[in-house]
Amino acid sequence: MDYEIFELGDVALLKGATLRGAKLAYKTYGKLNADKSNVIVYPTWYSGQHYDNEWLIGKGMALDPDKYFIIVPNMLGNGLSSSASNTPAPYDRARFPDITLYDNVTLQHRLVTEKFGIKKIKLVVGWSMGAQQTNQWGCLYPDMVERIAPFCGSAKTAPHNFVFLEGVKVALTNDAAWNNGWYDTPPTKGLRGVGRVYAGWGLSQPFYMQELWRTMGYSSLEDFLVAFWEGFFLPKDANNLLTMLWSWQHGDISANPVFNGDIKKALGAIKAKAVVMPGEMDLYFPVADNEWEVKHMPNAVCKPIPGVWGHFAGGGANPVDTKFIDDNLKELLAS
Amino acid sequence: MDYEIFELGDVALLKGATLRGAKLAYKTYGKLNADKSNVIVYPTWYSGQHYDNEWLIGKGMALDPDKYFIIVPNMLGNGLSSSASNTPAPYDRARFPDITLYDNVTLQHRLVTEKFGIKKIKLVVGWSMGAQQTNQWGCLYPDMVERIAPFCGSAKTAPHNFVFLEGVKVALTNDAAWNNGWYDTPPTKGLRGVGRVYAGWGLSQPFYMQELWRTMGYSSLEDFLVAFWEGFFLPKDANNLLTMLWSWQHGDISANPVFNGDIKKALGAIKAKAVVMPGEMDLYFPVADNEWEVKHMPNAVCKPIPGVWGHFAGGGANPVDTKFIDDNLKELLAS
Repeated sequence: MDYEIFELGDVALLKGATLRGAKLAYKTYGKLNADKSNVIVYPTWYSGQHYDNEWLIGKGMALDPDKYFIIVPNMLGNGLSSSASNTPAPYDRARFPDITLYDNVTLQHRLVTEKFGIKKIKLVVGWSMGAQQTNQWGCLYPDMVERIAPFCGSAKTAPHNFVFLEGVKVALTNDAAWNNGWYDTPPTKGLRGVGRVYAGWGLSQPFYMQELWRTMGYSSLEDFLVAFWEGFFLPKDANNLLTMLWSWQHGDISANPVFNGDIKKALGAIKAKAVVMPGEMDLYFPVADNEWEVKHMPNAVCKPIPGVWGHFAGGGANPVDTKFIDDNLKELLAS
Repeated sequence: MDYEIFELGDVALLKGATLRGAKLAYKTYGKLNADKSNVIVYPTWYSGQHYDNEWLIGKGMALDPDKYFIIVPNMLGNGLSSSASNTPAPYDRARFPDITLYDNVTLQHRLVTEKFGIKKIKLVVGWSMGAQQTNQWGCLYPDMVERIAPFCGSAKTAPHNFVFLEGVKVALTNDAAWNNGWYDTPPTKGLRGVGRVYAGWGLSQPFYMQELWRTMGYSSLEDFLVAFWEGFFLPKDANNLLTMLWSWQHGDISANPVFNGDIKKALGAIKAKAVVMPGEMDLYFPVADNEWEVKHMPNAVCKPIPGVWGHFAGGGANPVDTKFIDDNLKELLAS
């Protein structure tokens, strides 16, 4: 086990359930300095786990563990933190409760403050749903969070994004083996279906036209669909995927008692210096949505990641995009 | 029955099967004039039937039945022309053979020439897969086809489009009731799944953000997903949808003995005056692909349909887009 568990105790979730003996899995990189001024928080993305974030962490990079203390908290439902797959009855499996962005971030805040006694965070950064958590951090803890860099994400899941996820969901739930979540063996056709529906959304039209999957080591389009897309989702737990999908579909940094659904108020509360980086051709977190958000954030700029990698511009698979993000993070951290 | 059947006899299809007693369903609008010089051919789109094309036909419109003789041939596999759902054993149901663009258009050509003795076509026009058939007409019969107006389509299905359709397909085939095509009762979960996956692709991100489904008479996003999307696909035959999906995924105007896979040669063979109209925000027939095609067509211009209706800019649901298309067709017909 290459990660730690922070015991949260009994947690009353925003939507009403109490998760007893809840657990937050996390990993840290680097050392917390004496005045606790070198902290970076870097939440995970849909179905990702802490190690999936490591491509953006490294010596000489912005997220340099020689300089910073980087905390990667695993999202609830991702299989390492409390999830359908690891929670004992009666809240196990199909009964695992709905988890909100607010739940994720307030519990991460407990880790950061209770476990480490941290009072200031130099940077919160994340991709996709990680970007949504980043924005949630920014508006819930404006006096604590100095900088944010959400990339390929949003502050509120757009209706079209919701619809795309309906398609992902139905490919899974149409597999009879899913059995409304009470499967004993994994619904493998459904999990493969998730990958196959997702494939068209994750990357752009010209990515496929230019066959850029070749640069990722795949030998044909079908090889990319099977080995990358189906292969990625096949080992995941179906109920976990549905938990995180619900969190995403209902992702809204203002949907909580602090902002009562007022998204402009929530965006306006983000005092942190913010660099918002959408993927130029992201099909479900479009640039236009981030541009709208940035107008309502007091201290933010929008810097699209150029190129054709779509949502995966923020996935670490294309060195040019990784350099763009890393360069912007360096600049932001230096400011 | 508001349409006619043209008996094709025994048809050897491009991929090897012989469809015995094949039928082409069609409907005509207006009257063929004495010198047979007022002909318009307007093929159908994925899962559409002739009546689904009627929004673009009418008195005072470009496709005016008072002036033109408009033939709407139903695509093979669409449930009216020979299809999995209406072909007797042994080529029935899951055994219905693969149908190509080339099959569709060469058989339509037989209807036009054998049934009506037509030698010149003033215009071939179509949406989506109808646009693909339009391009196929243009390159196979350059001396016959004077004008073409393919909208929201392409000459060759792009890899990303192929991938999007994989997602549509898996939502259907993951329903155990589909039973590899040997269902006795319709796989309704799968058919609903087709609608739900399709929903994100058919219309653009801002269409959903602006809730433009309200203009179509739906009361909520979920109402749009159920009543429009699921409702559209639920009555369709699953094997028919898969036949047409295969035709689409393999749609390529050069994939035939005339052009041997040379797409530039096929595009170059289109002598017709062509107005190619992509939807500005179409997610699966992107403008860039049409712009590339037009460069290789001797007498073509690309005129994107502005706005946020995505692929459905060509679906007849938005009056502004319909006027754009109609105006361009009028101009093209007058030239």
